[in-house]
Amino acid sequence: MFRPAYLDWNATTPLDPAVRDAMLPWLGERFGNASSRHEYGRQARAAIDEARARVAAAVGAHPTEVIFTSGGSEANNLFVKGAAALLKPATVAVSAIEHPCVREPARQLRRQGWSFQEIAVDAEGVVAGPAWRAALDARPALISVMLANNETGVLQDIPRLAEEARPTRAWFHTDAVQALGKLPVDFRALGVHALSLSAHKVGGPLGAGALVLDKRVELAPLVAGGGQERNLRSGTENVAAIVGFGVACERAAGRVADEAPRLRRLREVVEAGVVALGARVFSMGAERLPNTVFFALEGLDGETLVGKLDRAGHAVASGSACSSANPEPSHTLLAMGVEPTVARGAVRVSLGRDTTAADVDAFLATLGVLAAELRQMTALAV
Amino acid sequence: MFRPAYLDWNATTPLDPAVRDAMLPWLGERFGNASSRHEYGRQARAAIDEARARVAAAVGAHPTEVIFTSGGSEANNLFVKGAAALLKPATVAVSAIEHPCVREPARQLRRQGWSFQEIAVDAEGVVAGPAWRAALDARPALISVMLANNETGVLQDIPRLAEEARPTRAWFHTDAVQALGKLPVDFRALGVHALSLSAHKVGGPLGAGALVLDKRVELAPLVAGGGQERNLRSGTENVAAIVGFGVACERAAGRVADEAPRLRRLREVVEAGVVALGARVFSMGAERLPNTVFFALEGLDGETLVGKLDRAGHAVASGSACSSANPEPSHTLLAMGVEPTVARGAVRVSLGRDTTAADVDAFLATLGVLAAELRQMTALAV
Ligand SMILES: Cc1ncc(COP(=O)(O)O)c(C=O)c1O
Ligand SMILES: Cc1ncc(COP(=O)(O)O)c(C=O)c1O
Repeated sequence: MFRPAYLDWNATTPLDPAVRDAMLPWLGERFGNASSRHEYGRQARAAIDEARARVAAAVGAHPTEVIFTSGGSEANNLFVKGAAALLKPATVAVSAIEHPCVREPARQLRRQGWSFQEIAVDAEGVVAGPAWRAALDARPALISVMLANNETGVLQDIPRLAEEARPTRAWFHTDAVQALGKLPVDFRALGVHALSLSAHKVGGPLGAGALVLDKRVELAPLVAGGGQERNLRSGTENVAAIVGFGVACERAAGRVADEAPRLRRLREVVEAGVVALGARVFSMGAERLPNTVFFALEGLDGETLVGKLDRAGHAVASGSACSSANPEPSHTLLAMGVEPTVARGAVRVSLGRDTTAADVDAFLATLGVLAAELRQMTALAV
Repeated sequence: MFRPAYLDWNATTPLDPAVRDAMLPWLGERFGNASSRHEYGRQARAAIDEARARVAAAVGAHPTEVIFTSGGSEANNLFVKGAAALLKPATVAVSAIEHPCVREPARQLRRQGWSFQEIAVDAEGVVAGPAWRAALDARPALISVMLANNETGVLQDIPRLAEEARPTRAWFHTDAVQALGKLPVDFRALGVHALSLSAHKVGGPLGAGALVLDKRVELAPLVAGGGQERNLRSGTENVAAIVGFGVACERAAGRVADEAPRLRRLREVVEAGVVALGARVFSMGAERLPNTVFFALEGLDGETLVGKLDRAGHAVASGSACSSANPEPSHTLLAMGVEPTVARGAVRVSLGRDTTAADVDAFLATLGVLAAELRQMTALAV
């Protein structure tokens, strides 16, 4: 099997082998339904409780604040739709660079009479200044600003934003899906009412995520029924995935102090390399995730480059994986005022725990060759 | 590890070893995000496409009619809430014995101005007669009647009900979660517009389910965002679980012709045995799943009996596992007009592919001993 070097850790991560080992018994002889009142059921329930404690500890929350979902998209939808369902229609304000699984449910609240407001970002992708103050002046009832963007990696100063939003009495949510495992995430220090997580972005399995929720916030469930997860998320719990999520959180949080500086050093190599090839690196002037470089090489199409890089053995992304069924240029870049022609050139490299200096060097060497080839072709075509 | 004999296959099933083998690569080196445009992503996408074809084939549907969800509860909620969101408020009619993950979302539609109607069942738990005709006379816009009940195993004549409902032009949904793998399920022959499935009830993993949906039905997504599943269910696809679901469906459908009669013979042994102990078997006069016996022994508490059976090495259920956090007597039995004192005695035995005649004999022997003991204690206490 042909296996390109994986440089797309923001899209998904390989399952951490220790996580896999923790999951396997739950795909084997420990198969009980956690609601069952026999030995199989009790084992499953105890495993979920333990995982809940691990996820909570990884983000400085209380276990009772953790609501397990099927992933990050569901956690974001649960917050937006679930909170709105129990409020009178008002204003929902979300940053202009949110992941579609925050933006879309927020936009859809218009059907229920809500007013939808996008909070503009500056040229670096940061929420600040007059646009932010205008958003607060509109007295939103719900606010969502992501901690780390999946494309540029740009970070928002959530503690400050949450503090400034306090007088509005809005429920403040942050999507921390891309932040976990890459920088310390602390629910209390962030000062938010709700925070979303996803297991598969931190070495955990697909199929688990969480909404960490302040007890004061009342939510209607998206999935109603048997009453699991304190009646906020019904459905037989995915025990193996939840167990894996718990272990992945614990390991990711434990590793972050060593991993973040290591990744940052590799990122700087990538950045210096692409800049040397003439690239523009997006959000380069802002605080960013230590593992993410989003760049464009003038005149070269991102999709084309990603295809050629893949065939040459380097798996990278052209835009957000989640919306890459969509051929539009990156919504994040457009919101930053990047011209569509430049945005169409965007390529994302995102590093992770298995990434080595050799992977990065090989990627840069190939990129140099491919860029020269493509530029020559373009020159010939003219 | 103490491992009671598992006689609770309606709550969940052990993962079929062949399903597990099919899943493992997707928990290992094939970890891609199916939306990614590189080798890892393409592999994941191809695996999902193959699984979709398998699930569709198992129920005689077209692959494009299969919407993957995180499980049966989400599939049921997606139908009820998703269809209602795009209709003018009207009447939703569901049978009085639906699983809570149909009943609750239907009830909650009242918040959006819908009228909620429960279709009464007869003493055997069957939808028929005047109650059914009255439900149709109310001209519902949405109807949901389950193919097989999780507690009694009672079957509904869905082809006839769907046919009779046609003049109302309602969207007709059936929850086939408990039917798949226990009897042939054919989307076209049932004549419904939508049908729900869950992987973990058929030897597949937790974390996957499907709504099989006629193209004419328009739905709003529960989880909006990246646009996966034709925009009806966003979120990075749980590739391993979906692959496992596909293989589980194929195997379950392939096995049903042999398994159903084998299970029915074992069920008859259980029935004869509990009747000999003086039990009442619920829905005994109706068509039922071949694997399910729901019974009560006069004067004995179901919870107590289940606890004692568990300690003696037989894992059975007292009510529906999904709502067993709830100490109320079975909603299904109450809807059938069973007195609460009798309903509180209910015990469910549900058999599956690993169940042997020896398991059944051992269970009956233990039940006989425990029932005699409990009756003696009760007699002494009086
Ligand atoms: C910032 C962000 N939020 C949410 C999600 C959705 O998470 P999931 O894939 O678990 O649904 C993603 C990635 O897909 C993401 O990058
Ligand atoms: C009839 C029925 N419908 C739906 C469900 C819910 O399915 P899931 O556990 O996959 O959410 C169950 C069992 O839990 C069931 O028995």
